[in-house]
Amino acid sequence: MEQKIIARCRRLAECSEEPGYITRTFLSLPMHEIYALLRGWMEQAGMKVHVDAVGNLHGVYPASRPDAARLYVGSHLDTVPHAGAFDGILGVVLGVALVEQRAGNRMPFHIEVIGFSEEEGVRFGVPFIGSRAFAGDPLRDSRIDEAARAFGLDPSRIIEAQADAGAIGYLEFHIEQGPVLDNLGLPLGLVEAIVGQSRLTVRFRGQANHAGTTPMHLRRDAMATAAEWIAAVEREACGTDGLVATVGRLNAQPAAVNVIAETAEASLDIRHPIDAVRTAAATRLLRCADQIAARRGLTLSSELHLDQAAVPMDPELTHILGRAGGGNLHRMASGAGHDAMIVARRMPAAMLFLRSPGGISHHPDETVLPEDVAAALAVGMRFLECLEAQNG
Amino acid sequence: MEQKIIARCRRLAECSEEPGYITRTFLSLPMHEIYALLRGWMEQAGMKVHVDAVGNLHGVYPASRPDAARLYVGSHLDTVPHAGAFDGILGVVLGVALVEQRAGNRMPFHIEVIGFSEEEGVRFGVPFIGSRAFAGDPLRDSRIDEAARAFGLDPSRIIEAQADAGAIGYLEFHIEQGPVLDNLGLPLGLVEAIVGQSRLTVRFRGQANHAGTTPMHLRRDAMATAAEWIAAVEREACGTDGLVATVGRLNAQPAAVNVIAETAEASLDIRHPIDAVRTAAATRLLRCADQIAARRGLTLSSELHLDQAAVPMDPELTHILGRAGGGNLHRMASGAGHDAMIVARRMPAAMLFLRSPGGISHHPDETVLPEDVAAALAVGMRFLECLEAQNG
Repeated sequence: MEQKIIARCRRLAECSEEPGYITRTFLSLPMHEIYALLRGWMEQAGMKVHVDAVGNLHGVYPASRPDAARLYVGSHLDTVPHAGAFDGILGVVLGVALVEQRAGNRMPFHIEVIGFSEEEGVRFGVPFIGSRAFAGDPLRDSRIDEAARAFGLDPSRIIEAQADAGAIGYLEFHIEQGPVLDNLGLPLGLVEAIVGQSRLTVRFRGQANHAGTTPMHLRRDAMATAAEWIAAVEREACGTDGLVATVGRLNAQPAAVNVIAETAEASLDIRHPIDAVRTAAATRLLRCADQIAARRGLTLSSELHLDQAAVPMDPELTHILGRAGGGNLHRMASGAGHDAMIVARRMPAAMLFLRSPGGISHHPDETVLPEDVAAALAVGMRFLECLEAQNG
Repeated sequence: MEQKIIARCRRLAECSEEPGYITRTFLSLPMHEIYALLRGWMEQAGMKVHVDAVGNLHGVYPASRPDAARLYVGSHLDTVPHAGAFDGILGVVLGVALVEQRAGNRMPFHIEVIGFSEEEGVRFGVPFIGSRAFAGDPLRDSRIDEAARAFGLDPSRIIEAQADAGAIGYLEFHIEQGPVLDNLGLPLGLVEAIVGQSRLTVRFRGQANHAGTTPMHLRRDAMATAAEWIAAVEREACGTDGLVATVGRLNAQPAAVNVIAETAEASLDIRHPIDAVRTAAATRLLRCADQIAARRGLTLSSELHLDQAAVPMDPELTHILGRAGGGNLHRMASGAGHDAMIVARRMPAAMLFLRSPGGISHHPDETVLPEDVAAALAVGMRFLECLEAQNG
């Protein structure tokens, strides 16, 4: 089955806006083919299929009794430009495979496999268009409505995209998109939370001066100041369990070989599954920047651009998923955002990570190991059985 | 006299290619007016004036006897764009003032005041066009020849621009263009050497990765690596007397807030009056970059773009200048290049720095203090007397 799942992902990867690459943005033309292929496999597995007003694909495998609750299983259908074949779509294909494995045996709950139309934020610069509509918090944007109409959908019916209020929950399989599992030599990871995130800009202003005639002790060098602070950022993150902090961008001006930098503007991205840890670290790093700047005679300014809370996965559903995994799955945080963190606003959500070989994602080299797919499928099957025992 | 000198510099500053700014490049139109004004003051002081084939202005104050040796006093006439009123031209105006102060009293040597046509390298990207012709090592460049012809000069006669082989020496007054004297509260500095200079590019290559999903211990972050090295550059320079080292430019890519930098390319400018100290420091800093990169799993590459030796001023002439300054002038290195370092190839050269208030130069706010100009003029007069005693 794992080979079939991988082959299906590879087949779906052929649906692209760009020949030679995997690029599939929100409601782009190749999405029609995605729907057609998935619909075929879903119907073959006994599911009823429809596409909602925002382009989410739904395949419903009915429960043994009509008034049953509903379990959602899914992920997203769109990709970044020049993507790999597994980010998002694997979670949808695995959902279909779970139903297929049931081989017609009904469960005491409906299984609805959902493929969200948009998660990556590429087409309109806003992510989670699909899952936000599903969670009952749709993005209202005339560009989205227009795109829906152009695709043949009726955006006025977006309210119908929202999920059952009394659902059992949402299960998302996703590649890790990081090196943790690969590094530990583990196939699967149980996601306990999606990290919260702060994004800041920190600006040091010193004085431009001649690199030859200004002795070291008379400098107010914005580059050297920023460098000292970047080292402090790294130390702070290395010294705090689970914290990641990144200066990805540094713009030092006037950027001349023989002129001491007057200004340096650094970005800071800082994430942790516990909000208090993250915000305390951000505060310490700003204070540290202030102290370094003051000691060196520079001025500091900063801006907070993003302060996004962590989203814990549902403890009970995650516990069941963990039990389904044999009780010894590696527990971890997701450093990136996923549909599950949006869906969690409306229902219990749980996530299972599959190892990303080499930690590679958002790249044509992104892949999965067949044995990891087999392991994920097995955990998924046991998860259904555990739920059955509970909801039977 | 100091007020007259400053007023003359301010008057000459009106000769500009750009209204509202002081911008006067090699053989630009305002140079005609510069020659006319200086010629007037020179002739009034009893000097014979000519312009050589490369545009250097010469004013000769004849010695008491015709077979006497020659002392040159000067600096450059050109400016950077949006310059101040004193860089270069002050040294020429001070030379004229020295002769004026002699009030017709001849000396046992000719005094030739020279205004070099080009030092800043703005027009053609090559500096020292004037002093290189004077030193007998002219730059041959068809653009220079063309510019000379367009200005009304005959570039085929460039050989005539070269200085007397048996000259006594060359004295240059120049603003410091740095904060050292201002910081010490001193008007004048005795230049012992013009620093040597190395320029390098250092490139770190790590791995781009997701800023959220990549734990700190699995990163190969080119930005953090460069920051650690920039701190080491600063430590090295602060720990070595007279060394200056500057990272003025840092280009880290992909320069995204949420992506760990894959590459970081830093410039390094490193200067010291003793070549062995400079090259040893450059070697240590490259080794240090290598060690930091290796420890972090990054690769390093580097390029040496410039390895320019220090130019000591003539010890004997500098000693005389020091004595003329009362024996207690602050002795220092020049961190920037000057005509004196070119002229030193052909004859003994000595340099006297005047304090730059605020360390400011190459800027409209560049200035000099009248008392410093008076002090420089007094040192110059005593310097002539010391030479007279020696050459009498």
